[in-house]
Amino acid sequence: MEGFADDNETHGNFVDTETLRSLRHDINNQLSNVLLALEQLRYEIPDASEDCTFYMDSISISAAKINALLKATE
Amino acid sequence: MEGFADDNETHGNFVDTETLRSLRHDINNQLSNVLLALEQLRYEIPDASEDCTFYMDSISISAAKINALLKATE
Repeated sequence: MEGFADDNETHGNFVDTETLRSLRHDINNQLSNVLLALEQLRYEIPDASEDCTFYMDSISISAAKINALLKATE
Repeated sequence: MEGFADDNETHGNFVDTETLRSLRHDINNQLSNVLLALEQLRYEIPDASEDCTFYMDSISISAAKINALLKATE
């Protein structure tokens, strides 16, 4: 009986692939914003210190990893 | 007959919630890295121009939006 009550948005132990597709799309949009802002930031700081460059690279790498994680679910 | 062949990782039109939980966890880890690098970057550029501040804020806002998108799937 309780099992039937589980027929909600997440379908018990499963999620609609459309929900995942939409999530992927929305996150990718925000990732584009991050990468765009980062490029502008690199342009604004042409004489960036080694540390600054390291931190900006870290952000790029993390954004690329998020992109790869999303791609893996396609 | 063909219907039965669909019993793969994505279960046809559905995704295992465990897959989503794992994705959320991995993306959140990367988001933490982004926010940490951004905080260090702000510290490295105490006299940031208005434009620099704007771009760093943009990255923060996008990261927060990704976090909110992930939270909405919990």
